[in-house]
Amino acid sequence: MSERRPLSDRFSRRGLLLGGAAAGIGAAGATVAHRLVGEEPVPANAAPPVHGTRTVAFHGPRQAGVETPPQAHACFVALDLESGVDAEGVGRLLRLLSDDAARLGAGEAPLADTEPELAAVPARLTTTFGFGPGLVERVDPGAVPTWLAPLPEFDHDDLRPEWGQADLLLQVCADDPVTVSHAARMLVKDARAFARVAWTQTGFRRAHGSQPDGTTMRNLMGQVDGSINPRPGTDEFERLVWGSGGPAWLDGGTSLVLRRIATDLDTWDELDRPGREAVIGRRVADGAPLTGGEERDDVDLDATDDSGLPVIPSFAHVRRARTDDPGQRIFRRGYNYDLRDMLDGSGEAGLVFASFQADPVRQFVPIQQRLDELDLLNEWVTAVGSAVFAIPPGCEEGDYVGRSLVEG
Amino acid sequence: MSERRPLSDRFSRRGLLLGGAAAGIGAAGATVAHRLVGEEPVPANAAPPVHGTRTVAFHGPRQAGVETPPQAHACFVALDLESGVDAEGVGRLLRLLSDDAARLGAGEAPLADTEPELAAVPARLTTTFGFGPGLVERVDPGAVPTWLAPLPEFDHDDLRPEWGQADLLLQVCADDPVTVSHAARMLVKDARAFARVAWTQTGFRRAHGSQPDGTTMRNLMGQVDGSINPRPGTDEFERLVWGSGGPAWLDGGTSLVLRRIATDLDTWDELDRPGREAVIGRRVADGAPLTGGEERDDVDLDATDDSGLPVIPSFAHVRRARTDDPGQRIFRRGYNYDLRDMLDGSGEAGLVFASFQADPVRQFVPIQQRLDELDLLNEWVTAVGSAVFAIPPGCEEGDYVGRSLVEG
Repeated sequence: MSERRPLSDRFSRRGLLLGGAAAGIGAAGATVAHRLVGEEPVPANAAPPVHGTRTVAFHGPRQAGVETPPQAHACFVALDLESGVDAEGVGRLLRLLSDDAARLGAGEAPLADTEPELAAVPARLTTTFGFGPGLVERVDPGAVPTWLAPLPEFDHDDLRPEWGQADLLLQVCADDPVTVSHAARMLVKDARAFARVAWTQTGFRRAHGSQPDGTTMRNLMGQVDGSINPRPGTDEFERLVWGSGGPAWLDGGTSLVLRRIATDLDTWDELDRPGREAVIGRRVADGAPLTGGEERDDVDLDATDDSGLPVIPSFAHVRRARTDDPGQRIFRRGYNYDLRDMLDGSGEAGLVFASFQADPVRQFVPIQQRLDELDLLNEWVTAVGSAVFAIPPGCEEGDYVGRSLVEG
Repeated sequence: MSERRPLSDRFSRRGLLLGGAAAGIGAAGATVAHRLVGEEPVPANAAPPVHGTRTVAFHGPRQAGVETPPQAHACFVALDLESGVDAEGVGRLLRLLSDDAARLGAGEAPLADTEPELAAVPARLTTTFGFGPGLVERVDPGAVPTWLAPLPEFDHDDLRPEWGQADLLLQVCADDPVTVSHAARMLVKDARAFARVAWTQTGFRRAHGSQPDGTTMRNLMGQVDGSINPRPGTDEFERLVWGSGGPAWLDGGTSLVLRRIATDLDTWDELDRPGREAVIGRRVADGAPLTGGEERDDVDLDATDDSGLPVIPSFAHVRRARTDDPGQRIFRRGYNYDLRDMLDGSGEAGLVFASFQADPVRQFVPIQQRLDELDLLNEWVTAVGSAVFAIPPGCEEGDYVGRSLVEG
């Protein structure tokens, strides 16, 4: 070890732990030091922890990328099967992509990867498979869940067919944008003999570690977005997301509603802060209901102000979204998008709305119908893309996602 | 403090430091602990350090965003002045944007920010101003540096005018994509009365902390990219980047060459690994020269293999880029881009090439001429956009970027 290295470098892990132990704090000392760093600004000259090596298991009874705390970056790739691909071809495609996804998630290069070094930073990469009705029909037309169909077109939608339903969705998420770009490209390459890209949508949230873990995201409108999400691990989550809503091959699976929601940020800017809070029914500062409390507290829809008027306006987003039916709830896991690079100058930005739920027709549609009918927010947001996918169960090592469908 | 909190939570910073001091390591102990975390996988249940609070000073003799270690995300916004904007208008625009940029960099909302909460995570945000010839001419046609003009069109270029020269460039970089999106939008909004957006280009590198600090980036072709960059703080860097190459108002400034380089990743994939290494003259695995050594070692252009053939092919990128003229060097600070969201299906990806140098005509052009003439890499990369900007000096608090030009 060179003598020119700074003193602090010459302490080994062992040295620290021993030193800590001598002071009576032992291994906990390292943990405290870590937490300490988490709560203080990182010193400018300190090396930050390397998080690119973190992995999320691909194999298991359920697919990753649903309960997984949302990674910073996402690429949703929608594919349409080539006309000649039959049930056997679907099986081969899914076997190939499952193998790729398992390797990529472990930080290993897929077999055909021509840029293997780019795969070496998994950064919690997950690849989640979603099946459109077209894919299920190729295998077995009788196996299509009743809800696996385009959603009813809502009055306020302005759907563009180019952002519509596809046969296969790959939701690729990681905390590193290079990882996502490379993984999406690898998967598309390997799918190329079977399917063509219908569309892709990239999205982003706050960077890994730029805010404390568990902070609810803000969308580009500046609102806290997703406060009332059910919590993974709770009975409620089990029922709402993983509860069976389809045929047997989907046991252990769920569904994904994916909607591209364009936001008119320019006109939104014209609205003042009280106006924005009235539109949503929540405080901008912390996402708490206008009726008081904290972010995750219930909204008091009956509360009135000094003049006897409702605190939450009749057409506020939270009032319209809410229901007394405990089954009408969804788990949202969306991303912001900002395509100001588009040369047409549209500068479109918005939200890649993504929600998981056992049954989209029973859980998502009634909420959206109420919002579609009357929601102040409709003035600024418009769904321009919409698709629904069945999320099959996960698979164990050596197996592939979708076998319960393909091999019955 | 609740008794249910885990033991490790109950140690305070003070407690740790005192404990460390008792063991004879003192404040260095905290540093060691931090480094330790940096070298080990982050425990799954540990809170990561929050880096969104980190800031880079906006004020100073030189602008930030040049020597600043590259942030993970960038948005380059090119603006053209409205026809009625004169020298005084340019001054007002720059005063306004400097104030915005200083606030945003400090994690504060600009005065007109309608989403102030999005500004609260600076994540090392920098806004770097670049002036095109059009802006300088509005103020003083005699003040335009001789090199501040479109580059000669190289034979291999395929420039699209829509990605061309503009009057004002804002290079917005941060480690958080939401921060970049919001800051770019804020700046564009405040510029709106004076200028319109000509184009924007977003780019990305590895996420903050996903790899150890100082790792040279890989581009989407999988190559280590930028190994021979001069190092900030060295005499060489001072001379090459900050050395005067223009009129007095530019003292303390530099220049930026910005080129959008589209990469044909599909045909690049057809090339095997030895072929890729021959094209560049470096090993893919670690970026070291094919003639041996480590990433930053010199390339031995005279080395021959057992058959007497040069190890570095005649038309290899490193051979063509290299020169014996120590003044023909540039400082690269580019970003990957990946626009697979574009609906036209082009899926264009590549590199937002960005280089800083005192004089682009003397430093950048001869390198590019050699590459243009003969470079194996030309088979896969094509410049489709090109612009040059003067990077004026920085400013102190209360002052604005560009005053040395506007007020002479």
